[in-house]
Amino acid sequence: MKLMTPQELEAALRDIGARRYHRLHPFHTLLHGGECSKCQVQAWALNRYYYQAMIPIKDASLIARCDDQATRREWRSRLADHDGERDGEGGIARWLKLTDGLGLDRDYVTSLQGLLPATRFAVEAYVHFVAEKTLLEAVASSLTELFSPAIIGERIEGMLKNYDFVTAETMAYFSARPPQAKRDSEFALDYVKQNAKTPEQQALALKALAFKCDVLWVMLDALYYAYVSPGHISAGAFAPA
Amino acid sequence: MKLMTPQELEAALRDIGARRYHRLHPFHTLLHGGECSKCQVQAWALNRYYYQAMIPIKDASLIARCDDQATRREWRSRLADHDGERDGEGGIARWLKLTDGLGLDRDYVTSLQGLLPATRFAVEAYVHFVAEKTLLEAVASSLTELFSPAIIGERIEGMLKNYDFVTAETMAYFSARPPQAKRDSEFALDYVKQNAKTPEQQALALKALAFKCDVLWVMLDALYYAYVSPGHISAGAFAPA
Repeated sequence: MKLMTPQELEAALRDIGARRYHRLHPFHTLLHGGECSKCQVQAWALNRYYYQAMIPIKDASLIARCDDQATRREWRSRLADHDGERDGEGGIARWLKLTDGLGLDRDYVTSLQGLLPATRFAVEAYVHFVAEKTLLEAVASSLTELFSPAIIGERIEGMLKNYDFVTAETMAYFSARPPQAKRDSEFALDYVKQNAKTPEQQALALKALAFKCDVLWVMLDALYYAYVSPGHISAGAFAPA
Repeated sequence: MKLMTPQELEAALRDIGARRYHRLHPFHTLLHGGECSKCQVQAWALNRYYYQAMIPIKDASLIARCDDQATRREWRSRLADHDGERDGEGGIARWLKLTDGLGLDRDYVTSLQGLLPATRFAVEAYVHFVAEKTLLEAVASSLTELFSPAIIGERIEGMLKNYDFVTAETMAYFSARPPQAKRDSEFALDYVKQNAKTPEQQALALKALAFKCDVLWVMLDALYYAYVSPGHISAGAFAPA
């Protein structure tokens, strides 16, 4: 292995996004193109809720392992973005406006009863990864946010155009995210470029981003398998009425 | 075991404080009474720095294990109190003003090289306790803050009066703490009163507070042993010039 310059490392990270980010997943093609039924959109929002709900848990576990005050302070803004300042604010609350708008019962959503087991496994793999790997790997695993503004733009436009049950208000989560994702991913990218100082560390950072792409991808595989290909809904998981 | 009312539980928690909080430790009697040498005050501030520095780590690990958004949001203010909004702000920075004011080199303090091993063990026991026990026990272990406004009042008054090397500016950490400690401990006390619902849980909460009193007490035992009783400074730990 050969040491890359920081610019080469960034290019390699962006190449992983270009090849493996879930923007390319066939479920998203259906979702954004108006080819999902309302039930399929509900299943997506319900399962993705668990990912949203666990984000502050994984971010706090990163802060808990970080002995640099400036990094902890910067990472803290992610907690504020997701948990907000009071009930009804923040990213998780905005996600629940989406599930509300889709006609899902809020207690049912937050109970997690309807989750696909694969969603649970994928999300928990991410949480454990961040809690257990090196800080560099934990930070690098967040870099899927480098690629999220583009997918969010496609999603807002596609879903508002194609589904009469989706409104700008229920999509509030997505309209708030791009500036947060931009700020967070720029910080994380700088961190990785500065702290991956050996070929081994650079390889671990790339592997961490690939792992995170896998997490997001597997969540959509599970949705596709359960709700697009017929007949595969796991016992106990959300099912169309 | 018999179930206590919330009021009885509070009284039992306060009784632990009355008997076991480190306000009663002989090192504090010396420190606040003007009977410590400058070197002994330095050793106290240097060792206690590690405790201060680890507080956001333990608080973030509590948030990381908490699935209730309102509690996470409330607990987040502790991160802000200790890490501040930028370099030079927050409780850890204020603690470093104290060590600066006492003539300790800042790099030496933050390197942790001069720590007594017992300080390290006690602080890390607390961090692991919060990371590994139930959330109720983790919250209950913070309740030593119920008792801190009184000791801080004694400390500010005693140290300003008795040591010409201590100024109001270097004591800024302590003047900022009481309102934070009051807010935090009231929240934590309510949490424990509401969530310790069985005799077993109440016993665990009481045990957690006793454990935390032990952590603080053991840190002072180590200082007393090393720096008041002569000749016991551990190899490599801070030593008088």
